[in-house]
Amino acid sequence: MKLIREDISADIQKRIDTIRLKIKSEGLDAILLASNSNIFYTSGRLFRGYVYITPEHPALYFVVRPLSVDTSDDTIILRKPELIPSILKEKGMPLPKRLGLEFDDLYYSEITRLQAAFPEATAENCSHLLRKVRMVKTQWELDCMRYDGLRQASAYRRFSKCYREDMTDVEFQIEIERLLRLEGCLGYIRTSGSQMEINMGSVIAGDNADAPSPYDFTMGGAGVDPSLPVGANGAIMHPGETVMIDVCGAFNGYQTDMTRVWKIGEIPALAEKAHECSRNILRECEKMAVPGCRVATLYDKAIEIARNEGLSEYFMGHAQQAPFIGHGVGIQLNELPVVTSRSRDVFEENMTIALEPKFVIPHVGAVGIENTYIVTPTGLECITPFPEEIQSL
Amino acid sequence: MKLIREDISADIQKRIDTIRLKIKSEGLDAILLASNSNIFYTSGRLFRGYVYITPEHPALYFVVRPLSVDTSDDTIILRKPELIPSILKEKGMPLPKRLGLEFDDLYYSEITRLQAAFPEATAENCSHLLRKVRMVKTQWELDCMRYDGLRQASAYRRFSKCYREDMTDVEFQIEIERLLRLEGCLGYIRTSGSQMEINMGSVIAGDNADAPSPYDFTMGGAGVDPSLPVGANGAIMHPGETVMIDVCGAFNGYQTDMTRVWKIGEIPALAEKAHECSRNILRECEKMAVPGCRVATLYDKAIEIARNEGLSEYFMGHAQQAPFIGHGVGIQLNELPVVTSRSRDVFEENMTIALEPKFVIPHVGAVGIENTYIVTPTGLECITPFPEEIQSL
Repeated sequence: MKLIREDISADIQKRIDTIRLKIKSEGLDAILLASNSNIFYTSGRLFRGYVYITPEHPALYFVVRPLSVDTSDDTIILRKPELIPSILKEKGMPLPKRLGLEFDDLYYSEITRLQAAFPEATAENCSHLLRKVRMVKTQWELDCMRYDGLRQASAYRRFSKCYREDMTDVEFQIEIERLLRLEGCLGYIRTSGSQMEINMGSVIAGDNADAPSPYDFTMGGAGVDPSLPVGANGAIMHPGETVMIDVCGAFNGYQTDMTRVWKIGEIPALAEKAHECSRNILRECEKMAVPGCRVATLYDKAIEIARNEGLSEYFMGHAQQAPFIGHGVGIQLNELPVVTSRSRDVFEENMTIALEPKFVIPHVGAVGIENTYIVTPTGLECITPFPEEIQSL
Repeated sequence: MKLIREDISADIQKRIDTIRLKIKSEGLDAILLASNSNIFYTSGRLFRGYVYITPEHPALYFVVRPLSVDTSDDTIILRKPELIPSILKEKGMPLPKRLGLEFDDLYYSEITRLQAAFPEATAENCSHLLRKVRMVKTQWELDCMRYDGLRQASAYRRFSKCYREDMTDVEFQIEIERLLRLEGCLGYIRTSGSQMEINMGSVIAGDNADAPSPYDFTMGGAGVDPSLPVGANGAIMHPGETVMIDVCGAFNGYQTDMTRVWKIGEIPALAEKAHECSRNILRECEKMAVPGCRVATLYDKAIEIARNEGLSEYFMGHAQQAPFIGHGVGIQLNELPVVTSRSRDVFEENMTIALEPKFVIPHVGAVGIENTYIVTPTGLECITPFPEEIQSL
């Protein structure tokens, strides 16, 4: 098995080159990556091991498992990370004085072990550097995400067909998960953050939309068990309620993030109004988010539109409100930038973001739309094409 | 919402008391927990926040999210961890000099942030302490796991009904996932280790059983995408192959781990023989594993039985062999002890372990059984009751 697939080797080389420039500009001598997301980003596949990148040399891939990869000049089978420095010396490469390690992606004991393997080096946090590089996607990555969006939309098209009267939200979610998986969804959501947990996404109906969750997702939901308090809670879905579906768009190592709303019977005008407000917010954001635009301005605009419509108390939750309306998305569900008032990020071409201005209407449920977008010179390109109107179940 | 449910408050107090004795015997002044697994263990639910435990005082629960919990003497709403020391002072509690933090469960930057909040304290790793305490289950935990085993077995009973000729392994897995979810499975596997990734378990058929994975699971499988190289690979299942099903048993914050094997048409005698060998290994282990028995002796016995049957080259994998035949299980899929030759653990009453002596037969697939057990004074009690014979699809 060749570690780097030929079809994407040029794309990966571009990613490595971008990382190298950043390493140099931050004054680091090298970085050593070990998190799954960054291993995947810098190799195009998953292995247990390390990727070592310097400004001057080709990237080195140290593979602990599986043992079946072809070794080559840049791919080395490794028993343990303590052996890396001697291998570097054998290759005539200097040992780093300033070494970047993923402080925000690896456990404390993993980092201290790597630090001990390089006793002469000062370790510095390179997690943010990688997040910033990964924020702007390459062409291959954009193609993967466009594909995700089409597949995700194709699955969403079939969700309403598996609804039956008097179904619980969990029963509905189970059929939705099946349709997603049959569409090719991998069924696993890779997230950033040590304490994020969810299975294949969230289906929330009625008052459960207002149950606050400990997790960093925009919407809550009590879940069916106190050990996993997020999403569907097992209640029967009733007429007069909305059902918000925000489920997994991961088909190929990348993912899109997409939410649509269905209703059972008729819902109050307030809910319909809030849903239209969400769409209006998206239309504004789609025009605003051009390269050079500050990310925070989207958040501020959303807050302003919701306030002007008199909907502030429902915006981004009711009992508990989320302080952001969107986030970067790609290998991980929650990448940079975070679309919040405190963001200092500025949009660049080929960034990918999910925008999800949502409202929780008490006794009705959640409304609003989430789309995933690519930042282009003329605004946002939506890659989750699916009707935005509230549809009937 | 009361943080500690009344029905389990006595059970949780027992857990806290056990932790306290350990804290004292290790000379720590306090521990501060933040990982989901340990928050769940010490409170019976999931919240974003911290649990502070000393040998002398009642446990304190600092809740960052959700905001809807009742505050009380021992439950405090917290904005950020930096405020914990001043709250302790207000309560007249001394600040710790030796503070246990979860070095193996939290990211480097999370630990250094907590260290900085307690500048007078020396931080020490308490991850192992918690793992050792959690290794021996309380009565409530055992009840949860017995329930998991019954539900998991009940779902397994229906798997063969959704098999169709010329199905791919992924299509079969999708129907299996649905049956599990309908049985009440939460669909999320909580693991230990920063780089473990899997959706609802693994269904591996034929030669895919021999595809090595980067993950720390006993069996591999190529997966359907290089971003998640584990389990089913999308191939059509053929006569003459085995299908090993090792899928999620998480119904209530705990989980059981269980594997059974099906076959399509007839399979070679070697595969049947290896499967019987797995059952013989389990029967031996079930007798041996009484309180006081060294965990490593089970591994050594398994290796010996496999060798005596001439099956060593297939044991625990063929192309890549796993160095363990079982593991503790509970809140996390992979708890202590690890049943390996290097284990220094000794069995105690009410430990729970999954034993999975498996074989990979080239061109046929994987065979063998996995059961979850409780350690009792007279040996192992199996809590995953389901026929062990290879069944036909």
